[in-house]
Amino acid sequence: MSVRPAPGTPKPGLAVVGATGAVGAVMLRILSQHADVWGEIRLVASPRSAGRKLAVRGEECEVVALTEDVFDGIGVALFLVPAEVSARWAPVAVAKGAAVVDSSAAFRADPDVPLAVPEINPHAVRLRPRGIVASPHDTTLTLLPAVGALHAEFGLCDLVVSSYQAASGAGRDAVGALRAQLSLVAGTELGVAPGDVRRAVGEGLGPFDAPLALNVVPWTGAAPLGGGWSSDELALRSETRKILGLPGLRVAATCVRVPVLTGHSLAVHARFEREVTVERAHEILATSPGVVLCDDPEAGDFPTPADVVGTDPTWVGRVRRAPDDPTALDLFLCGDNLRKGAALNSAQIAEMIAAEPRG
Amino acid sequence: MSVRPAPGTPKPGLAVVGATGAVGAVMLRILSQHADVWGEIRLVASPRSAGRKLAVRGEECEVVALTEDVFDGIGVALFLVPAEVSARWAPVAVAKGAAVVDSSAAFRADPDVPLAVPEINPHAVRLRPRGIVASPHDTTLTLLPAVGALHAEFGLCDLVVSSYQAASGAGRDAVGALRAQLSLVAGTELGVAPGDVRRAVGEGLGPFDAPLALNVVPWTGAAPLGGGWSSDELALRSETRKILGLPGLRVAATCVRVPVLTGHSLAVHARFEREVTVERAHEILATSPGVVLCDDPEAGDFPTPADVVGTDPTWVGRVRRAPDDPTALDLFLCGDNLRKGAALNSAQIAEMIAAEPRG
Repeated sequence: MSVRPAPGTPKPGLAVVGATGAVGAVMLRILSQHADVWGEIRLVASPRSAGRKLAVRGEECEVVALTEDVFDGIGVALFLVPAEVSARWAPVAVAKGAAVVDSSAAFRADPDVPLAVPEINPHAVRLRPRGIVASPHDTTLTLLPAVGALHAEFGLCDLVVSSYQAASGAGRDAVGALRAQLSLVAGTELGVAPGDVRRAVGEGLGPFDAPLALNVVPWTGAAPLGGGWSSDELALRSETRKILGLPGLRVAATCVRVPVLTGHSLAVHARFEREVTVERAHEILATSPGVVLCDDPEAGDFPTPADVVGTDPTWVGRVRRAPDDPTALDLFLCGDNLRKGAALNSAQIAEMIAAEPRG
Repeated sequence: MSVRPAPGTPKPGLAVVGATGAVGAVMLRILSQHADVWGEIRLVASPRSAGRKLAVRGEECEVVALTEDVFDGIGVALFLVPAEVSARWAPVAVAKGAAVVDSSAAFRADPDVPLAVPEINPHAVRLRPRGIVASPHDTTLTLLPAVGALHAEFGLCDLVVSSYQAASGAGRDAVGALRAQLSLVAGTELGVAPGDVRRAVGEGLGPFDAPLALNVVPWTGAAPLGGGWSSDELALRSETRKILGLPGLRVAATCVRVPVLTGHSLAVHARFEREVTVERAHEILATSPGVVLCDDPEAGDFPTPADVVGTDPTWVGRVRRAPDDPTALDLFLCGDNLRKGAALNSAQIAEMIAAEPRG
C-alpha cells in the first residue's frame, strides 16, 4: 500500500507512547527501517523512564514523560502501553489534534473505533469518529492476513483455532520468567514425574498460571469472562468478526501458551461457503500481501516460530483440504507477535494516516 | 474392569517383547504395581540387549533374545517394538499359541485385528480372528477415554483436534535430543532472531524435522501420505473411527510436536448430534473410567503435561460449550503418552485376556 504523503506536504510529527517497552523497542527498529514519512519523532514513556536515550532513525532521542504537552504539534500518536494507560491518555492526544493508533485492548470493542489490519480492511482506517484506530490482539493478527485472504475468495463460515502462543505475548517479564525456568530444568532429569517441574520452578512462575518450561499452559489472557472462556479466546472471536465484517461468524478458540520466546503459531480449521482446493488456496496465499507460503512438508518446509521470529509476514504452511469436508481447509500459521502481532501493524496504520491528504 | 482369573485357573505366562525400550521400562513398572495376574514373566529384546537384568515384580529377571522359542508356554505376548518387528514376530507368537497385544501400527488398520481402548470398546478384545489385538497410537489414546464417554451420551459427528505432542512420543533418542537442545539454548539470548535456534542446534535435530527447543514443530509421524497429511493425523482419524465404530466420522487433525519431555495434550473441538451442556459434560467426565476432570480455571485448575506425567488417566479441563454452536464442546486433554498412551493400555488389554475363561 502507498504510504507516501502528497508532494509538498510537511511531514507529520509522531509520538511513540510506551517507547521503552518490549513492543516499543521493536517499533523503534521498524521506524528506522521503513520509509521515513515522519517529521519529529517524540519518544514518550512513564516518568521513571524519562531522560533515557534511545536510538531511532540513526539518532539518539531522549525519552520524555507522558504529559498533556507531549502531544503538541503531533499528527499521529502511537500508543504501545497497557489498556488502562491508553484509556486515559488516548482521548487527551485526540483533543490535542493527534490521530491515535492504539495497540491495547482499550478501544477494540468500541463500535466508534475501527479495528484495522491494513492488508485486510484498509478502508476502516479513514473512518474514525473518535479519532482513534485500534490494532488487534496479537493472536488475531497472526490469523487475519491469511484467513482474511481466503475469506475474500471462498466466504468464511466457521473457524476452529488452537494457539501455540509465545511467552513474549505476556510481556517482557514473561520472557525473563521463561528463561529463568529453562535454566532451572535444562540439563536435569526433571519433567518425567508428576509435578517435578512445578517444584523446581517454585515461586518462579512469572505471569503464567503454571510452569512454562517443559510444559504447555492452556490458559492465556485475563480471568474467565463466562462459560469458561479466556479473554484471549473471546477476543479472537470478536475481533475476527469485526475486522471481516462478519457479525455471525462462528469461532471457537483454545489459547495455549508454549515455551517459545517470540513467535505465535495457530492451527486453524476454516470452513467456507464454497468448495475449496489446496491448489487455489496456495495461489491465494502465495500472492496475498503480508503472507508467505511455506508448504512442502516432504521437503521439510513448514513454518516454525524459531524460523520466522524477527520477520514481518505471517507464514503459512500445512495447507490441507479437510478429508471429510470439501469446504474446509486446515492450516498452520506462524508470525512474530511483537512485529506484525503488535508494532508492525500499528506502524502500518500510522503510515496510512500519514499518507492521507490533509488541509 | 475385572481382571481376575477364574478361581483355580493357573496364571498364564506373559512375554514382554521390547522390554528394554522406553515403553518397556514403563511396562515393567506397571506390571510391578498392578494386581499380579501372571505366571512367568519373560522379558524379551533384541540380541544386543540379551543378558541384561531388569527388575519386575520386585525380582531381577534376565532379558532373553527374541527367537521362536521365547513364546513356548506363553499365554499372552505383549509387543512393544517397532511395527516391522511386530509384523514379523506377532504371527510367530500366535502360531505358538499366545494371544498377542501389539502396541505398534503394524495391525491397527487390519479389519481382522480389533483396536481396543478397554474403557471404551472392551467387547472388541474378545473378537480376534488373527489372535492379535492392537493398541492405538498415543494421540488416539489421549483422545478416546474422554471423547468416547461424551460420544456415548451425545453422539459424535465431527472432531477438530490440534495436538501438543511430547518428545518421548518419538522414542528415547528424541528425549535425548530435546535435552541436548535445551542445554544449548538455556541461559542464552537465542530464540529472538530468525534461525538462531536452528544454528545453535546445528546437527542436533535428532528425529525432529526442525529444532524443538524454544520452538514447536508442525509435523509428527512419517512422510506425507497424500493431501499433505502426516501419518499421525490420518491415524487419529482412522483409529478413532474404528474404535468408536463410526466409519463416517469427520476428523481433521493437526499434529504438532512441542518441547515437553513426556505428556501429550490435545485441544479438541467436538460436535455432536444432540445439544450439549457443560454441566452434563462435567458429570459424564467426572464419572468415566480412566478420566479425571480438572476444570476450574478461575482457581488455576486445568491439566498441563508437566503436572500429569507419570499418572494413568486422561485429564480433562477447559470444558466449554462452543459460543456459536449448542451442539459443540471445546476441551483440553492431557495424558502420559508412555503410560495410557502406550504401556498402560496394552497392559489393560493383556489383563482382560488373562481374565478370560479358558479351557
